[in-house]
This record gives sequence, C-alpha cells and structure tokens, in this order.
Amino acid sequence: MTDQATATQACFACGTGSPNSLLSTSQPSKSPSVSSSTFSLSFKLPDSRPSSPSPSVFSNSSDRTMSSSSSRPDRTPAEAERDYFSENPAPANLEKYAAQAKEFIDFHAAAGRRVVLVTSGGTTVPLERQTVRFIDNFSAGTRGATSAEYFLENDYAVIFLHRQFSLLPYSRHYSHATNCFLDFLSEGSDGSVIANEEYREKMLTVLRKYNSAKKENRLLTLPFTTINDYLFVLRAVAHDMRPLGPNGLLYLAAAVSDFFVPPERMVEHKIQSTNATDLNRTAAKDPADDEEVFDNFDSSPAVPRNKRLIIDLDPVPKFLKNLVDGWAPEGMIVSFKLETDPHILIQKAQYSLDRYQHHLVIGNLLSTRKWEVVFVAPGQPGRWIRVPRNRRKKSIGGNERLVGVAAEGTETIERPLDPKDLPDGEPEVEIESLIIPAVEAMHTSHIKKNQESLKSLPRDASLPPDQAALLQEAVASG
Amino acid sequence: MTDQATATQACFACGTGSPNSLLSTSQPSKSPSVSSSTFSLSFKLPDSRPSSPSPSVFSNSSDRTMSSSSSRPDRTPAEAERDYFSENPAPANLEKYAAQAKEFIDFHAAAGRRVVLVTSGGTTVPLERQTVRFIDNFSAGTRGATSAEYFLENDYAVIFLHRQFSLLPYSRHYSHATNCFLDFLSEGSDGSVIANEEYREKMLTVLRKYNSAKKENRLLTLPFTTINDYLFVLRAVAHDMRPLGPNGLLYLAAAVSDFFVPPERMVEHKIQSTNATDLNRTAAKDPADDEEVFDNFDSSPAVPRNKRLIIDLDPVPKFLKNLVDGWAPEGMIVSFKLETDPHILIQKAQYSLDRYQHHLVIGNLLSTRKWEVVFVAPGQPGRWIRVPRNRRKKSIGGNERLVGVAAEGTETIERPLDPKDLPDGEPEVEIESLIIPAVEAMHTSHIKKNQESLKSLPRDASLPPDQAALLQEAVASG
Repeated sequence: MTDQATATQACFACGTGSPNSLLSTSQPSKSPSVSSSTFSLSFKLPDSRPSSPSPSVFSNSSDRTMSSSSSRPDRTPAEAERDYFSENPAPANLEKYAAQAKEFIDFHAAAGRRVVLVTSGGTTVPLERQTVRFIDNFSAGTRGATSAEYFLENDYAVIFLHRQFSLLPYSRHYSHATNCFLDFLSEGSDGSVIANEEYREKMLTVLRKYNSAKKENRLLTLPFTTINDYLFVLRAVAHDMRPLGPNGLLYLAAAVSDFFVPPERMVEHKIQSTNATDLNRTAAKDPADDEEVFDNFDSSPAVPRNKRLIIDLDPVPKFLKNLVDGWAPEGMIVSFKLETDPHILIQKAQYSLDRYQHHLVIGNLLSTRKWEVVFVAPGQPGRWIRVPRNRRKKSIGGNERLVGVAAEGTETIERPLDPKDLPDGEPEVEIESLIIPAVEAMHTSHIKKNQESLKSLPRDASLPPDQAALLQEAVASG
Repeated sequence: MTDQATATQACFACGTGSPNSLLSTSQPSKSPSVSSSTFSLSFKLPDSRPSSPSPSVFSNSSDRTMSSSSSRPDRTPAEAERDYFSENPAPANLEKYAAQAKEFIDFHAAAGRRVVLVTSGGTTVPLERQTVRFIDNFSAGTRGATSAEYFLENDYAVIFLHRQFSLLPYSRHYSHATNCFLDFLSEGSDGSVIANEEYREKMLTVLRKYNSAKKENRLLTLPFTTINDYLFVLRAVAHDMRPLGPNGLLYLAAAVSDFFVPPERMVEHKIQSTNATDLNRTAAKDPADDEEVFDNFDSSPAVPRNKRLIIDLDPVPKFLKNLVDGWAPEGMIVSFKLETDPHILIQKAQYSLDRYQHHLVIGNLLSTRKWEVVFVAPGQPGRWIRVPRNRRKKSIGGNERLVGVAAEGTETIERPLDPKDLPDGEPEVEIESLIIPAVEAMHTSHIKKNQESLKSLPRDASLPPDQAALLQEAVASG
C-alpha cells in the first residue's frame, strides 16, 4: 500500500462530504409502514388528573407499537440481536467500512501487532426519517481522541470509530482549540502560508506524530452519526477483529444512546402538528385559524394552546453481552460508565461488570472526568487513577507536558474528588496518559493468561480446527 | 482598539474552553424544586389498552407541571416573554456577550455601517441539568457561516451568534473539510510548518479575507449551546441593535428548538430508572435483581422489560413577534423556514410571515437547500433563488468559483426542484452568494423606505425625543 493510499484511508472519515451522509434516514426502511404513532400531541386539559391522563396523550395506534418485535418481553439476547439487525436498515457505507477494517486488521494481525478499536463521541437518535431533530449524547470526543493518541504512542494500531465531526486524534489540538484554526497561520513573505512561530514547535510535534501514524498505516478512522450506524459498524468491526484473538482490544468510550425510535414508528417528515392536507385546507380558509405548533423558529399560535411534544422511546437492545460472548470472544473489552451522581458511580460500574462479565469498566463523573477515573475489574476493589495533585494546574510558564507520570497516578483516597477542589480549566497532564498505560498492562496480562490457558490445554483437546488455529496464531503473535 | 484585541474578540467563541461552558445546566436554577415528573417510565403491560394508558405513564407530580406558568393558556405574548425570562436562568456569559455586542455595534453605528446579526447552527434542549442527553436540531452551521462571509464581502459588520463548535466564517473551509486539517500542512525544510502547495492559493485567499475582517473589527462571534442561551443572547443583542435603526439586519438562520423542558421539570442527574437509594438497597441484596435500565452502554436488564423513556416537552414561547415589535423595531428581520415536505414549504413560510409581520421568510427544503431557496415577502409571490443550471456541478478541473452570478440566479420554474434531478455532492456555486446580494437589495429598500417616511413626517410630529434622535441618526447614516 502506498503512503498516498494510506493517507486517504487514515483520513477518509473527514471526507464523507455531506454531514448527512451516514444518517440512517437516507436509507430505505425495510418496514414500509410509516406512522406517527410515537409523536403525540396532548392538551393540558384543566380537568386531566394525574391518575388518569387524557386519552389523547397517546394516539390510537398503540397496538402497532405494542406488537413491535423490538419490544417483545420474552426474547433471548440472541433473538433481540437478530431482530434488531433485521428490523433496522444497515447504513449505506457498512460494507465499505467493514472491508477497510478487515484489510487494516489483517495487515496488523500479520505483523503480530495489537489492534484497539476505540469508539468515541455521542450517538444520535433521529426523531424523523428526514432528520431535522434528534436526541444526542453529550460528548465532544475528547476521551476517545486523546486515548487513541496514547494507544498509538504505545505501538497499537487504532481503529477510531467516532461520531462524524467529533474530535480526531492529533487534529483535536486545533479543531476545538482555544484559537480559531486560522489564527495559527499567517502569510509568509513569499505568498506561502506558515504556522506562526508561537505555535510552530507544538504543531510540528503533532504533525510528525500524525504523519508517522499515517505512514505506518496505524490509524483507521470510521465515522458514525446515529445509534443505528454505530451498532451495525461496531458489530462488523468486532467480527473482523476475531483473527486477532487476545491481541484485540475494544475500548468503548462512545456515549451510546440507551433509547431509540424503532423504524416502524419513525415519521418521514419534520414533525408537524397538522399534516399537509390539513394545512392546505386551513390555509385556504383563514391562516389565522391554523394551529401551527411546530414552526421552525417559534411554535405556539397567537394564543398559546399549551401543546406539548411527547417523545416515546424504546430501550436499545443490550449488545455488550453479545460482544463479550460472540462477536469478539477472545479480545479484551473495556467499557465506560459516565454518571453525574458520585454516590452511584462505582456501584453502577460494578453492576455493569457483573452483568456482562467483561474485563474492565472505567467509571467517570461528568464534572471530574478530566481529573480522575475509577477502574472496576473482576475481583478487585475500585482503583482510582488521578492526575497527580502537583499536575492538576497548568504551570504559569505554559510549559505543557502532555505525558504524565503513571506511578504518581494512583492516590489512596477511595472516594471521588469534590469538583470544588479542582482548579478551573484543564489539568496540566492529560489523564488519558495515565489511563492507557494502565489498560495496556491489563491487556498484556489478558494476553499472557490466554497463552497460559492454551499451553495447559491437553494436546488432544477437541477444539474445532479453525479455533485451534486462531489460538495458535494468538500465541505466536502475542 | 488594537488588532490584538480585535483578534481576540473576533475569535473568543473558540476560546470558551469547556464545551460545556455555556450549558444552562451549570447555572443555578431560580426554581428550587427539582422534579423528575417529566421523565416517566412506563411498562408496556399486556393488558394496557390504547384508550386507557397505564397510570404509571405519568408520575403523580403532574399537578406541579400543570401549574407551571410557562404553560398558562391565557397569557399575552408580552407576559409569555416576561415569564420565560424570569423563570429560566440567564446564561453565565450573558452580560459579557451583551457588552461586547454593544461595543461592536456602537463602533459601526458611529461609522454608519450596516450591521447584521447572523444566527447559525442548532440549539439544544438539555434533558438533565447535569446534561448527558439533549435534543438537538440538525445543522452544521453551513448556511449561517457561508452567509456571514458574503455579508462581510458586502461591507456589513457581522455579529455571528452560533452554536459552539459549529462552522465559522472562513475556518469553515477547513474545519469540516474534505481533508483533515493536518493534511493541509507539512514540515518545511527548516522545521517550519507550511501549507502544502496544492492548497496554498485558496488558503491564502481565505486567510487574507479573515485577517481583513479581523483588522477592520467587522466580525464578532458569540457562541450558544442551549435554546435558553440562544433566547437570552438574541434578546440582548437585538436590544443592543436599536441604535442602528433601519441599518440593522437580523438574519435568523439558526435551527431553533420548538420545544423545551422548563427548569422546574428538569432533573438534576443523568436520568435513572431507580434512584441512588433504591440502587443501594438493591445492590446490597442482589445486583441481578436491580433493574438498571439506563446503563451508559446498554440499557435493558437480562430479561427485557420493555421499558420506555417518555420525554414530555413544552412549546418554546413565541419570540419572533416580540423581536419585530419591541426588541429591534426598526431593523429588517429575515427568518428561515426549513421543511422536508415540498408540498407545504411556501404555505408555511407565508403563514409565518402573515403571523409575525416581518420582512422576509427564506424557505428551504432539507434535501435541496444548497441548490435553491424561496423568498417569501409581503405582497409578493414566492421568488425562487437557484444555483444556475450550468453551475450545479463542480467543473472537472476543480476550478472552484465561490461567487455566483446573481442575475442568473432566478429561474422561472415556480415549484421546488426534484432532488433526483440534482447532481451528487455540492454545487459549484454557493447559493449564499446569490442569497446575500438579494437580501442586501431588500435591506437597501428597507432603509430608503424608512428615510422617506421620516422625511414625510410633519415637523411637529409628537415623537419622543430619543426616538426622533434615533430616526435622525438613521437618516444621517443610511
């Protein structure tokens, strides 16, 4: 593969052109029925009582809602998966992305290199097929993009599955930076465009690292927008990663939606209070009588009618269990647990670990996530990883050291920091410079354990030939 | 003001640091009661019937919901405005932004320059105070950022009120571009960082325009995130614009939420199905019994319970009328109407114009918005502005001309284009290069009309002294 091809591959995520290109709304639905049953207007009638909401709160198409197989209460996880992927349309670029991932993984599997899939940014839940409104999950992609850089520095090959236009490794230093991108540049004397001397040194360092990752074909970026894009591509890439055996690492830092609108309940057009026919009729009569509630700027009629929008969402089927059991059974799996309430963080992380039986949950709080995280792994108490006290504030001289000192990273205080005790702004050390070496050490143990269990296998163990080959390959490359 | 100060001002929008910094969730609420009444879980009970939804669909705190003054049906628009701004917390940076806008406007008012407020990007509706989830409106900010550039080229001073991290004038050519930002740069022989020759010429053109706008203090960028940020800052800046008289132009291209969660109904923490106390109790007993529905990755328990999330939103009070009548009574006001259904576009635009009595609605369809828009103004039929047929496709040589030919921009076909007839990708000509000169011409007429009506005033007209001074100033500077 030429450098040019590699560069294109490493960066094609930025090149999808339209911000809409991966929206599942551009996909034909496999379900022909388009219904607005999910979106119901309700009037706050003065006589409606809490114990008996007005019947108008839900449309009378609830029967269809209830018969949706996405919601059947008696399904096994495998059935839920099968139903989800058969009922929801695959994103347009799925095959292209899966093929790119496969080529990338095979390249590094052959070299015995570890490969990490980093997911990053928030997934969206479109509320209309031609999407004007959507539910989003807060994430600029900082955790994922920063982690990806440290994985690259630790010799991993990185598949970066990220929300389109969220932060990317390396370019993150400039895309959402303190200055506008153009403020870093000026016109040279000969009509050239050059980086200002003030920023030159850091920009050169970042550019060299980026070019090195491109040259070695160690960074593949794949974009997603919706929860549906994410789930389809995640499944495909996890499947692609099976040949890596224990050398594969899944580092799931994306902020993934818990709820979605099943396709059979999604409306085609921007949600309106009246449909086009009604509007035509009303407008012909007297526009002032029209009850236009969903105006682009401004919604209520001249006299407010107190109309509300009610959005009714189904839970996203649970896929982490499938990931652990089936999609990438030998890889190490790390998930994140973001909470805002410090009192429930560790319990929620522990609970997720108990349920899915994967390898590590990294817990973090919205307000302190750049200063500390907690590692929750099987059979261990929560282990806090913190930016050391003396590195929490950027030094006055602006001498920014990006890599922290891992040995200093663990404090003995076993409770979350109080956000009030933290300085304003960003810590001097990026906490991902402490997280990634710790994850890498656990991954090394994971690989060793796998090798040992392989060695201890009796020679006549009745492994299927392909699985035995995989294990052998894993030992050879680990 | 020094160039340095101007540069900082023109770009401080990029410098707010945390992507969270403007979220209203960081504001103390004026309403002390925090209730989860809006977020109700419902079980799809097999026996629940459409005509009588389960009582659990709504919590029993609906009484509080119904007493919310945001929802009182008998309010005048002025009361709705007063209530909104007294019940919702002002964003942290409101005073700073208003002061910056005032200084900027006074500077240009003194020079007799026209000032346009361009709003751009989508507003968010947070679902929690410590926001993990929010509802968003689809917009990369292309319309607003591109329009702002053409206003600058047409000698306007531009206040760019935009969604944080959405596209900005000039940097838009690189921030969401076909290439990663770092792909435009390479290492020079002397350790410098330079733009690749391939991109140099265009980058130099963009950089010169950007630096010129900065040097002349003609671009002020102000960020927003939530619908609440937007409404507060819009009101403040519109007030600041009154001294401009008819020289002020409001160009409202932002995709503004129609619905929001009133503060008294907003929960503090990430939405959970059980509260922390319940979780503690359950976890101590047996984690497997805990019904954790809102897991960060994956929501449903081992056996799906078909739990749903129901989000109940109030309409955003109508403010366009206030803008027309009170905030900026002499300025010209342009709003946008985005639809997905071509059959209702013009009627909806006409309807908005009839209701608010402002000057221009620019209608556009999601699928064709880069190729055509329709101008709907009082007493005129819809006027289509289109990228000319021979400029709809970028030429093979990649010779990208950004400025179109306005005279060619109007076609006689009076119905929307069929998206199927349009080429893939982007048109060769940016449609904003046709929109802005047309808006500018209307603004010139608006100013002239205002001057004429002032001249025709009898000399003893009983104008309050300050309004007379404003009008006189408007004539002098127009």
